[in-house]
Amino acid sequence: MLHAHDLSPLTRVRLAVDCMGGDHGPSVTLPACQAFLASHPDVDLVLVGTEEALAGARGLPRTTCVVATEVVTMDDSIEVALRRKKDSSMRVAISQLRPGRDGAPALADVCISAGNTGALMAVARYLLKTMDGIDRPAIATVIPNRMGRYTTMLDLGANVDCTADHLLEFAVMGSALVTAIDGVDEPSVGLLNIGSEAIKGSEVIKRAGDLLRAAAQDGHLNYFGNVEGNDIYGGAVDVIVCDGFVGNVALKTSEGLASMLGAFIREEFSRHWWTKLAALVAMPILNRFRARVDPRNYNGAALLGLRGLVIKSHGGADVHAFGRAMARAYDAARNRLVERVHDGVVETLRALPQQTTETTTAA
Amino acid sequence: MLHAHDLSPLTRVRLAVDCMGGDHGPSVTLPACQAFLASHPDVDLVLVGTEEALAGARGLPRTTCVVATEVVTMDDSIEVALRRKKDSSMRVAISQLRPGRDGAPALADVCISAGNTGALMAVARYLLKTMDGIDRPAIATVIPNRMGRYTTMLDLGANVDCTADHLLEFAVMGSALVTAIDGVDEPSVGLLNIGSEAIKGSEVIKRAGDLLRAAAQDGHLNYFGNVEGNDIYGGAVDVIVCDGFVGNVALKTSEGLASMLGAFIREEFSRHWWTKLAALVAMPILNRFRARVDPRNYNGAALLGLRGLVIKSHGGADVHAFGRAMARAYDAARNRLVERVHDGVVETLRALPQQTTETTTAA
Repeated sequence: MLHAHDLSPLTRVRLAVDCMGGDHGPSVTLPACQAFLASHPDVDLVLVGTEEALAGARGLPRTTCVVATEVVTMDDSIEVALRRKKDSSMRVAISQLRPGRDGAPALADVCISAGNTGALMAVARYLLKTMDGIDRPAIATVIPNRMGRYTTMLDLGANVDCTADHLLEFAVMGSALVTAIDGVDEPSVGLLNIGSEAIKGSEVIKRAGDLLRAAAQDGHLNYFGNVEGNDIYGGAVDVIVCDGFVGNVALKTSEGLASMLGAFIREEFSRHWWTKLAALVAMPILNRFRARVDPRNYNGAALLGLRGLVIKSHGGADVHAFGRAMARAYDAARNRLVERVHDGVVETLRALPQQTTETTTAA
Repeated sequence: MLHAHDLSPLTRVRLAVDCMGGDHGPSVTLPACQAFLASHPDVDLVLVGTEEALAGARGLPRTTCVVATEVVTMDDSIEVALRRKKDSSMRVAISQLRPGRDGAPALADVCISAGNTGALMAVARYLLKTMDGIDRPAIATVIPNRMGRYTTMLDLGANVDCTADHLLEFAVMGSALVTAIDGVDEPSVGLLNIGSEAIKGSEVIKRAGDLLRAAAQDGHLNYFGNVEGNDIYGGAVDVIVCDGFVGNVALKTSEGLASMLGAFIREEFSRHWWTKLAALVAMPILNRFRARVDPRNYNGAALLGLRGLVIKSHGGADVHAFGRAMARAYDAARNRLVERVHDGVVETLRALPQQTTETTTAA
């Protein structure tokens, strides 16, 4: 594949941080930034927050502070975030990704926020615009799987009604993400469906399968075929694409199940004095188990399809979890995710019309 | 609510069993039938299977054997089940629910099969027909929740594209199911969505919310509002409705996650000699935990909206699991599920046009 862009890694990564986002704001973001600076000498930070919050960032090395006067709360509507709070830390942080009015280069390579997802997507989309060839930006996250690796899944809620073309876009963007962050050259892509046979599913899903097969025949995608819900955790593929409604339900259903199972295990071990004794014995093993599936380690969802790189941290993230999201932001920026997505979209879409015709003729 | 039907419990329940269905066929179904007869003196069985298989049923009390010459396999297409294997055990078992040609009453009140879902739904729909007012039959199952009760969810895969009216039908049918089996008078119904606010979701979901609210205002449904994926296990409501694509993905995602977590726990406990020792100590507690979430206890999905009652057992069911599905079939038939669904549909649909108009006027 020829690339329109230089894809060699950045030598320095400039990370803009919305310090006010999330349930805990600067009490989480600032300690995470401090730790991240210590472990990443090739990182410069742009911290955005209220004057009061940024007082806690004084003296941090390789750090620029930018004051914003407003904060988008977790309950603020998209309308409020977009139209009223024009000097919010979220908005100012994202705007660090834009070139200056005088043509000066952007001040940051990637922006991270733990603010509310709807507001973040809306503001990012407004400030950065979507990439040529992308109709709908999507949200992608990683989910640990049984193979000891992880599955990248998108969309997770940015788009409730998707066309087949949108699902193809998601496949291209998800592939670029896995290549950028994990260095996997041709990540396999599965289409989330309710049966592994090609004839299953709705009309949109069937048509998406056709488009994905066509893109694969042209060498632009490593399309695996249909996958089912259990394959998310089975690890059948690197990337799973689905519409945002389905993806959101799958993710939240998983959270609900994991939470219920955790509660049941705790209940059983705390039932009597002898089960509490057994808990002491089993604790180190259960802790190892918990660490393996700790959702904090998988924090950091990517907003894909924009002309700039935005990473969304879970709102409830603690210092460890926010640090993991910063690491994902760093990896994505360092490996030029935006350029990779752009190149992938351009090449796949250029190839497609011709390929689709061939498929139709063959059928 | 006035009921068109007598809803007093049946004094005897006649259960038709497809003995050949599922991965294990008669080696599972026959022992389960024997145990069920022993524990349920008010049950008569109609066993359907090949001559060879039914030889094992000789001497069972209160049992009629009906020979079928063919078997629908787990891999058979709907086409094969419907058009070619006209003397399959599945088909003959379902046909026990139909009145005789001479107007004689049906020979069974409910049919149970562990055969493949697509074939079972297609054959049941063909033989029994859908109920007046029901456009799409649905598949409903129960899922254990954190409150120590369970959540009934539908549809789970019979319908990949649903309209708002279908989701309303599912709500009425699911409510009738919970009332029949659990004796809950006005089960609460949630609409699966990706946010709890009424404005979230696709156009179909928003319109379904309007219909459900209208039915609730008229006293025909106990509509809770939107629920999210995590509420399936949180136990916010008795019934959750969704289209079959989303329901299928949610269920299979849960299976995948549970399977991964189980594998990880086993791996951690079998890592070294001292973790194996800890496993011995923790075993009784982990077994209690496992029993609480044992999917075998929740076996038995109902095919709703047909003019007859069909219960689908998991294909991989063992004797215990098949027995649980038989118990669900027994409860549903004894409490006249079909009549309850019929009455619910008639009353809700009769009330709706008027109610919808009022809502529109008020808005």
